[in-house]
Amino acid sequence: MEELIISTKKHKQVIDITEKINQFLENQEKESGVVFIFSLHTTCALTTADLDPGTDLDMLDAFESMIPKLKYRHPHNPSHVGDHIMSSLIGTHLLLPFQNKELILGTWQRVVLIEFDGPRERKILVYII
Amino acid sequence: MEELIISTKKHKQVIDITEKINQFLENQEKESGVVFIFSLHTTCALTTADLDPGTDLDMLDAFESMIPKLKYRHPHNPSHVGDHIMSSLIGTHLLLPFQNKELILGTWQRVVLIEFDGPRERKILVYII
Amino acid sequence: MEELIISTKKHKQVIDITEKINQFLENQEKESGVVFIFSLHTTCALTTADLDPGTDLDMLDAFESMIPKLKYRHPHNPSHVGDHIMSSLIGTHLLLPFQNKELILGTWQRVVLIEFDGPRERKILVYII
Repeated sequence: MEELIISTKKHKQVIDITEKINQFLENQEKESGVVFIFSLHTTCALTTADLDPGTDLDMLDAFESMIPKLKYRHPHNPSHVGDHIMSSLIGTHLLLPFQNKELILGTWQRVVLIEFDGPRERKILVYII
Repeated sequence: MEELIISTKKHKQVIDITEKINQFLENQEKESGVVFIFSLHTTCALTTADLDPGTDLDMLDAFESMIPKLKYRHPHNPSHVGDHIMSSLIGTHLLLPFQNKELILGTWQRVVLIEFDGPRERKILVYII
Repeated sequence: MEELIISTKKHKQVIDITEKINQFLENQEKESGVVFIFSLHTTCALTTADLDPGTDLDMLDAFESMIPKLKYRHPHNPSHVGDHIMSSLIGTHLLLPFQNKELILGTWQRVVLIEFDGPRERKILVYII
Protein backbone atom coordinates (compact mmCIF):
# COMPACT_ATOMS: atom_id res chain seq x y z
CA MET A 1 0.00 0.00 0.00
CA GLU A 2 1.70 3.22 -1.14
CA GLU A 3 0.48 6.77 -0.56
CA LEU A 4 0.51 9.39 -3.31
CA ILE A 5 0.01 13.08 -2.57
CA ILE A 6 -1.99 15.10 -5.09
CA SER A 7 -1.81 18.86 -4.57
CA THR A 8 -4.93 20.48 -5.95
CA LYS A 9 -4.71 24.14 -6.93
CA LYS A 10 -8.28 25.40 -7.07
CA HIS A 11 -11.49 25.21 -5.08
CA LYS A 12 -13.07 22.96 -7.72
CA GLN A 13 -10.80 21.15 -10.15
CA VAL A 14 -10.52 18.07 -12.34
CA ILE A 15 -6.93 16.81 -12.10
CA ASP A 16 -5.44 14.32 -14.52
CA ILE A 17 -3.55 11.80 -12.37
CA THR A 18 -2.85 9.27 -15.18
CA GLU A 19 0.88 10.00 -15.27
CA LYS A 20 1.17 9.84 -11.48
CA ILE A 21 -0.28 6.32 -11.57
CA ASN A 22 1.97 5.37 -14.50
CA GLN A 23 5.04 6.61 -12.60
CA PHE A 24 4.01 4.43 -9.67
CA LEU A 25 3.59 1.41 -11.98
CA GLU A 26 7.02 1.93 -13.58
CA ASN A 27 8.66 1.37 -10.20
CA GLN A 28 6.80 -1.86 -9.42
CA GLU A 29 7.92 -5.40 -10.11
CA LYS A 30 4.67 -6.67 -11.53
CA GLU A 31 4.41 -6.13 -15.29
CA SER A 32 0.66 -6.42 -15.72
CA GLY A 33 -2.53 -6.80 -13.73
CA VAL A 34 -4.91 -4.48 -11.93
CA VAL A 35 -4.12 -1.44 -9.80
CA PHE A 36 -6.44 -0.21 -7.03
CA ILE A 37 -6.55 3.47 -6.07
CA PHE A 38 -8.42 4.88 -3.08
CA SER A 39 -8.96 8.44 -1.89
CA LEU A 40 -8.94 9.00 1.89
CA HIS A 41 -11.36 11.95 1.68
CA THR A 42 -15.05 12.84 1.62
CA THR A 43 -14.95 15.90 -0.66
CA CYS A 44 -13.10 14.58 -3.68
CA ALA A 45 -13.69 11.68 -6.05
CA LEU A 46 -11.86 9.34 -8.42
CA THR A 47 -13.10 8.34 -11.87
CA THR A 48 -12.14 8.14 -15.54
CA ALA A 49 -12.98 10.99 -17.93
CA ASP A 50 -12.60 12.57 -21.33
CA LEU A 51 -10.38 15.65 -20.99
CA ASP A 52 -10.79 17.42 -24.31
CA PRO A 53 -10.03 21.14 -23.75
CA GLY A 54 -12.72 22.69 -21.57
CA THR A 55 -14.39 19.40 -20.68
CA ASP A 56 -12.94 19.54 -17.15
CA LEU A 57 -14.74 22.86 -16.59
CA ASP A 58 -17.91 21.54 -18.29
CA MET A 59 -17.89 18.61 -15.87
CA LEU A 60 -17.50 20.87 -12.82
CA ASP A 61 -20.34 23.12 -14.05
CA ALA A 62 -22.58 20.11 -14.61
CA PHE A 63 -21.86 18.60 -11.18
CA GLU A 64 -22.43 21.96 -9.48
CA SER A 65 -25.73 22.30 -11.31
CA MET A 66 -26.83 18.73 -10.45
CA ILE A 67 -26.60 19.27 -6.67
CA PRO A 68 -30.04 20.16 -5.32
CA LYS A 69 -30.05 23.53 -3.52
CA LEU A 70 -31.86 22.43 -0.35
CA LYS A 71 -31.81 23.51 3.28
CA TYR A 72 -29.15 21.10 4.58
CA ARG A 73 -28.48 20.10 8.22
CA HIS A 74 -24.68 19.55 8.00
CA PRO A 75 -23.19 21.32 11.08
CA HIS A 76 -19.99 23.20 10.05
CA ASN A 77 -21.16 24.45 6.72
CA PRO A 78 -24.40 23.44 5.01
CA SER A 79 -23.25 24.85 1.64
CA HIS A 80 -20.57 22.20 1.79
CA VAL A 81 -22.97 19.24 1.68
CA GLY A 82 -23.01 19.09 -2.11
CA ASP A 83 -19.26 18.35 -2.10
CA HIS A 84 -19.83 15.32 0.14
CA ILE A 85 -22.73 14.15 -1.99
CA MET A 86 -20.78 14.30 -5.26
CA SER A 87 -17.90 12.42 -3.61
CA SER A 88 -20.24 9.63 -2.46
CA LEU A 89 -22.02 9.55 -5.82
CA ILE A 90 -18.94 9.43 -8.07
CA GLY A 91 -16.97 7.27 -5.67
CA THR A 92 -13.62 7.24 -3.93
CA HIS A 93 -12.11 4.06 -5.32
CA LEU A 94 -11.00 2.97 -8.77
CA LEU A 95 -9.66 -0.21 -10.28
CA LEU A 96 -7.58 0.05 -13.44
CA PRO A 97 -5.91 -2.47 -15.78
CA PHE A 98 -2.23 -2.22 -16.68
CA GLN A 99 0.24 -3.98 -18.98
CA ASN A 100 4.02 -3.49 -19.42
CA LYS A 101 3.91 -1.29 -16.29
CA GLU A 102 1.51 1.16 -17.96
CA LEU A 103 -2.23 1.75 -17.60
CA ILE A 104 -4.46 0.36 -20.36
CA LEU A 105 -6.92 3.13 -21.19
CA GLY A 106 -9.13 4.06 -24.12
CA THR A 107 -7.92 6.70 -26.61
CA TRP A 108 -9.67 9.57 -24.82
CA GLN A 109 -9.75 8.08 -21.37
CA ARG A 110 -7.84 9.65 -18.46
CA VAL A 111 -7.76 8.89 -14.75
CA VAL A 112 -8.93 11.90 -12.76
CA LEU A 113 -9.26 13.15 -9.22
CA ILE A 114 -12.15 15.58 -8.90
CA GLU A 115 -11.55 18.19 -6.20
CA PHE A 116 -14.74 19.69 -4.74
CA ASP A 117 -13.25 21.57 -1.78
CA GLY A 118 -9.67 22.59 -2.54
CA PRO A 119 -7.03 23.68 -2.78
CA ARG A 120 -5.65 20.86 -0.63
CA GLU A 121 -3.16 18.05 -0.39
CA ARG A 122 -5.07 14.87 -1.16
CA LYS A 123 -3.87 11.42 -0.09
CA ILE A 124 -4.43 8.56 -2.49
CA LEU A 125 -3.57 4.95 -1.65
CA VAL A 126 -2.24 2.87 -4.54
CA TYR A 127 -1.96 -0.92 -4.44
CA ILE A 128 -1.32 -3.55 -7.07
CA ILE A 129 -3.68 -6.52 -6.93
CA MET B 1 -16.96 -15.30 -0.02
CA GLU B 2 -18.86 -14.54 3.16
CA GLU B 3 -22.37 -13.11 3.46
CA LEU B 4 -23.23 -10.31 5.88
CA ILE B 5 -26.82 -9.40 6.70
CA ILE B 6 -27.60 -5.71 7.19
CA SER B 7 -31.05 -5.04 8.68
CA THR B 8 -32.25 -1.63 7.60
CA LYS B 9 -34.84 0.09 9.79
CA LYS B 10 -36.41 2.77 7.62
CA HIS B 11 -37.75 3.22 4.09
CA LYS B 12 -34.77 5.42 3.18
CA GLN B 13 -31.67 5.23 5.32
CA VAL B 14 -27.90 5.69 5.25
CA ILE B 15 -26.36 2.93 7.39
CA ASP B 16 -22.79 3.04 8.64
CA ILE B 17 -21.40 -0.48 8.02
CA THR B 18 -17.76 0.35 8.82
CA GLU B 19 -17.71 -1.63 12.08
CA LYS B 20 -19.43 -4.63 10.43
CA ILE B 21 -16.61 -4.76 7.89
CA ASN B 22 -13.98 -4.30 10.59
CA GLN B 23 -15.50 -7.18 12.59
CA PHE B 24 -15.26 -9.36 9.49
CA LEU B 25 -11.61 -8.36 8.99
CA GLU B 26 -10.70 -9.14 12.62
CA ASN B 27 -11.64 -12.78 12.05
CA GLN B 28 -9.58 -13.20 8.88
CA GLU B 29 -6.04 -14.50 8.58
CA LYS B 30 -4.78 -11.87 6.20
CA GLU B 31 -3.40 -8.80 8.00
CA SER B 32 -3.54 -6.27 5.18
CA GLY B 33 -4.73 -5.89 1.61
CA VAL B 34 -7.98 -5.04 -0.10
CA VAL B 35 -11.51 -6.12 0.77
CA PHE B 36 -14.31 -6.35 -1.80
CA ILE B 37 -17.95 -5.84 -0.79
CA PHE B 38 -20.94 -6.42 -3.05
CA SER B 39 -24.66 -5.85 -2.53
CA LEU B 40 -27.03 -8.44 -4.05
CA HIS B 41 -29.82 -5.89 -4.57
CA THR B 42 -31.14 -3.31 -7.03
CA THR B 43 -32.59 -0.75 -4.59
CA CYS B 44 -29.67 -0.11 -2.29
CA ALA B 45 -26.10 1.07 -2.85
CA LEU B 46 -22.63 0.96 -1.32
CA THR B 47 -20.25 3.91 -1.08
CA THR B 48 -18.10 5.93 1.32
CA ALA B 49 -19.46 9.07 3.00
CA ASP B 50 -19.06 11.83 5.56
CA LEU B 51 -21.49 11.17 8.42
CA ASP B 52 -21.42 14.38 10.42
CA PRO B 53 -24.74 14.64 12.31
CA GLY B 54 -27.59 15.17 9.87
CA THR B 55 -25.48 14.54 6.76
CA ASP B 56 -27.13 11.14 6.28
CA LEU B 57 -30.52 12.85 6.01
CA ASP B 58 -29.06 15.61 3.82
CA MET B 59 -27.79 12.94 1.47
CA LEU B 60 -31.17 11.18 1.28
CA ASP B 61 -32.92 14.50 0.60
CA ALA B 62 -30.44 15.36 -2.15
CA PHE B 63 -30.74 11.95 -3.85
CA GLU B 64 -34.55 12.11 -3.68
CA SER B 65 -34.45 15.55 -5.22
CA MET B 66 -32.02 14.49 -7.98
CA ILE B 67 -34.32 11.77 -9.35
CA PRO B 68 -36.31 13.15 -12.27
CA LYS B 69 -40.07 12.90 -11.70
CA LEU B 70 -40.99 11.37 -15.07
CA LYS B 71 -43.73 9.04 -16.30
CA TYR B 72 -41.89 5.72 -15.84
CA ARG B 73 -42.76 2.37 -17.44
CA HIS B 74 -41.56 0.02 -14.65
CA PRO B 75 -44.36 -2.59 -14.17
CA HIS B 76 -44.93 -3.19 -10.42
CA ASN B 77 -44.58 0.32 -9.21
CA PRO B 78 -43.37 3.22 -11.37
CA SER B 79 -42.70 5.42 -8.30
CA HIS B 80 -40.07 2.84 -7.40
CA VAL B 81 -37.88 3.48 -10.48
CA GLY B 82 -35.87 6.21 -8.79
CA ASP B 83 -34.64 3.68 -6.21
CA HIS B 84 -33.28 1.45 -8.98
CA ILE B 85 -31.69 4.42 -10.73
CA MET B 86 -29.86 5.65 -7.62
CA SER B 87 -28.63 2.11 -6.94
CA SER B 88 -27.20 1.83 -10.48
CA LEU B 89 -25.75 5.35 -10.30
CA ILE B 90 -24.02 5.06 -6.91
CA GLY B 91 -23.06 1.44 -7.44
CA THR B 92 -23.36 -1.89 -5.68
CA HIS B 93 -19.72 -2.78 -5.18
CA LEU B 94 -16.90 -1.29 -3.18
CA LEU B 95 -13.22 -2.01 -2.75
CA LEU B 96 -11.51 -0.89 0.45
CA PRO B 97 -7.94 -0.99 1.78
CA PHE B 98 -7.11 -2.51 5.18
CA GLN B 99 -4.08 -2.89 7.43
CA ASN B 100 -3.66 -4.72 10.80
CA LYS B 101 -7.12 -6.25 10.14
CA GLU B 102 -8.75 -2.81 10.09
CA LEU B 103 -10.04 -0.60 7.27
CA ILE B 104 -7.84 2.32 6.24
CA LEU B 105 -10.17 5.30 5.90
CA GLY B 106 -9.87 9.08 5.97
CA THR B 107 -10.67 10.97 9.20
CA TRP B 108 -14.30 11.63 8.19
CA GLN B 109 -14.76 8.69 5.89
CA ARG B 110 -17.24 5.90 6.66
CA VAL B 111 -18.43 2.92 4.65
CA VAL B 112 -22.18 3.12 4.08
CA LEU B 113 -25.05 1.13 2.69
CA ILE B 114 -27.75 3.42 1.31
CA GLU B 115 -31.22 1.90 1.62
CA PHE B 116 -33.73 3.25 -0.90
CA ASP B 117 -36.58 0.78 -0.34
CA GLY B 118 -36.50 -0.56 3.21
CA PRO B 119 -36.89 -1.65 5.84
CA ARG B 120 -35.34 -4.94 4.70
CA GLU B 121 -32.66 -7.51 5.32
CA ARG B 122 -29.87 -6.77 2.87
CA LYS B 123 -27.28 -9.34 1.83
CA ILE B 124 -23.73 -8.14 1.32
CA LEU B 125 -20.94 -10.40 0.07
CA VAL B 126 -17.51 -9.76 1.57
CA TYR B 127 -14.30 -11.19 0.17
CA ILE B 128 -10.63 -10.48 0.79
CA ILE B 129 -8.56 -10.06 -2.35
CA MET C 1 -6.62 -9.71 -19.60
CA GLU C 2 -9.18 -10.61 -22.26
CA GLU C 3 -11.11 -8.22 -24.51
CA LEU C 4 -14.84 -8.60 -25.13
CA ILE C 5 -16.61 -6.72 -27.91
CA ILE C 6 -20.12 -5.46 -27.19
CA SER C 7 -21.99 -4.21 -30.28
CA THR C 8 -24.54 -1.64 -29.26
CA LYS C 9 -27.52 -1.11 -31.57
CA LYS C 10 -28.97 2.27 -30.64
CA HIS C 11 -27.83 5.79 -29.84
CA LYS C 12 -28.75 5.32 -26.17
CA GLN C 13 -29.15 1.79 -24.85
CA VAL C 14 -28.90 -0.32 -21.71
CA ILE C 15 -27.38 -3.67 -22.69
CA ASP C 16 -27.51 -6.74 -20.47
CA ILE C 17 -24.00 -8.22 -20.59
CA THR C 18 -24.52 -10.77 -17.78
CA GLU C 19 -24.43 -13.77 -20.13
CA LYS C 20 -21.34 -12.47 -21.94
CA ILE C 21 -19.50 -12.38 -18.61
CA ASN C 22 -20.83 -15.81 -17.65
CA GLN C 23 -19.61 -17.23 -21.00
CA PHE C 24 -16.17 -15.79 -20.27
CA LEU C 25 -16.18 -17.35 -16.77
CA GLU C 26 -17.19 -20.79 -18.13
CA ASN C 27 -13.96 -20.92 -20.11
CA GLN C 28 -11.70 -20.01 -17.21
CA GLU C 29 -9.87 -22.37 -14.87
CA LYS C 30 -10.72 -20.59 -11.65
CA GLU C 31 -14.01 -21.78 -10.14
CA SER C 32 -14.76 -18.86 -7.85
CA GLY C 33 -13.50 -15.42 -6.94
CA VAL C 34 -13.92 -11.93 -8.28
CA VAL C 35 -13.99 -10.74 -11.90
CA PHE C 36 -12.97 -7.22 -12.93
CA ILE C 37 -14.49 -5.57 -16.02
CA PHE C 38 -13.34 -2.29 -17.51
CA SER C 39 -14.69 -0.22 -20.40
CA LEU C 40 -12.10 1.53 -22.60
CA HIS C 41 -14.46 4.41 -23.44
CA THR C 42 -15.64 7.81 -22.23
CA THR C 43 -19.27 7.71 -23.43
CA CYS C 44 -20.50 4.44 -21.97
CA ALA C 45 -20.65 3.04 -18.45
CA LEU C 46 -20.77 -0.24 -16.53
CA THR C 47 -23.02 -0.95 -13.57
CA THR C 48 -25.59 -3.38 -12.16
CA ALA C 49 -29.31 -2.78 -12.68
CA ASP C 50 -32.87 -4.05 -12.42
CA LEU C 51 -34.13 -4.85 -15.92
CA ASP C 52 -37.86 -5.35 -15.45
CA PRO C 53 -39.57 -4.61 -18.79
CA GLY C 54 -39.24 -0.91 -19.61
CA THR C 55 -36.83 -0.13 -16.79
CA ASP C 56 -33.96 0.16 -19.29
CA LEU C 57 -35.83 2.96 -21.06
CA ASP C 58 -36.84 4.53 -17.73
CA MET C 59 -33.19 4.62 -16.77
CA LEU C 60 -32.15 6.28 -20.03
CA ASP C 61 -34.92 8.88 -19.66
CA ALA C 62 -33.87 9.62 -16.09
CA PHE C 63 -30.18 9.99 -16.97
CA GLU C 64 -31.02 12.24 -19.94
CA SER C 65 -33.16 14.38 -17.69
CA MET C 66 -30.49 14.57 -14.95
CA ILE C 67 -27.86 16.11 -17.23
CA PRO C 68 -27.91 19.91 -16.81
CA LYS C 69 -28.57 21.72 -20.10
CA LEU C 70 -25.73 24.25 -19.90
CA LYS C 71 -23.58 26.08 -22.41
CA TYR C 72 -20.69 23.60 -22.61
CA ARG C 73 -17.17 24.26 -23.92
CA HIS C 74 -16.36 20.77 -25.29
CA PRO C 75 -14.82 21.33 -28.77
CA HIS C 76 -16.25 18.76 -31.25
CA ASN C 77 -19.79 18.77 -30.05
CA PRO C 78 -21.02 20.49 -26.89
CA SER C 79 -24.30 18.52 -26.91
CA HIS C 80 -22.13 15.47 -26.39
CA VAL C 81 -20.79 16.56 -22.96
CA GLY C 82 -23.63 14.95 -21.05
CA ASP C 83 -22.56 11.53 -22.38
CA HIS C 84 -19.07 12.02 -20.95
CA ILE C 85 -20.48 13.22 -17.65
CA MET C 86 -22.78 10.24 -17.20
CA SER C 87 -19.90 7.89 -18.05
CA SER C 88 -17.68 9.51 -15.38
CA LEU C 89 -20.53 9.58 -12.85
CA ILE C 90 -21.69 5.96 -13.24
CA GLY C 91 -18.19 4.64 -13.79
CA THR C 92 -16.28 2.51 -16.25
CA HIS C 93 -15.18 -0.36 -14.05
CA LEU C 94 -17.00 -3.09 -12.18
CA LEU C 95 -16.01 -5.86 -9.81
CA LEU C 96 -18.28 -8.88 -9.53
CA PRO C 97 -18.30 -12.06 -7.43
CA PHE C 98 -18.55 -15.53 -9.03
CA GLN C 99 -18.87 -19.14 -7.91
CA ASN C 100 -18.91 -22.39 -9.93
CA LYS C 101 -17.84 -20.29 -12.94
CA GLU C 102 -21.01 -18.18 -12.75
CA LEU C 103 -21.69 -14.65 -11.48
CA ILE C 104 -23.33 -14.36 -8.06
CA LEU C 105 -26.06 -11.76 -8.45
CA GLY C 106 -29.27 -10.82 -6.65
CA THR C 107 -32.61 -12.09 -8.00
CA TRP C 108 -33.27 -8.94 -10.05
CA GLN C 109 -29.69 -7.88 -10.57
CA ARG C 110 -28.09 -7.80 -14.02
CA VAL C 111 -24.73 -6.53 -15.26
CA VAL C 112 -25.22 -3.77 -17.81
CA LEU C 113 -23.30 -1.62 -20.21
CA ILE C 114 -24.99 1.75 -20.70
CA GLU C 115 -24.41 3.18 -24.16
CA PHE C 116 -24.70 6.97 -24.36
CA ASP C 117 -23.33 7.54 -27.87
CA GLY C 118 -23.96 4.51 -30.05
CA PRO C 119 -24.40 2.48 -32.03
CA ARG C 120 -20.79 1.35 -31.68
CA GLU C 121 -18.47 -1.54 -30.99
CA ARG C 122 -17.43 -1.24 -27.36
CA LYS C 123 -14.29 -2.87 -25.95
CA ILE C 124 -14.50 -4.30 -22.46
CA LEU C 125 -11.50 -5.80 -20.66
CA VAL C 126 -12.25 -8.78 -18.45
CA TYR C 127 -9.81 -10.16 -15.88
CA ILE C 128 -10.14 -12.64 -13.04
CA ILE C 129 -8.61 -11.48 -9.77
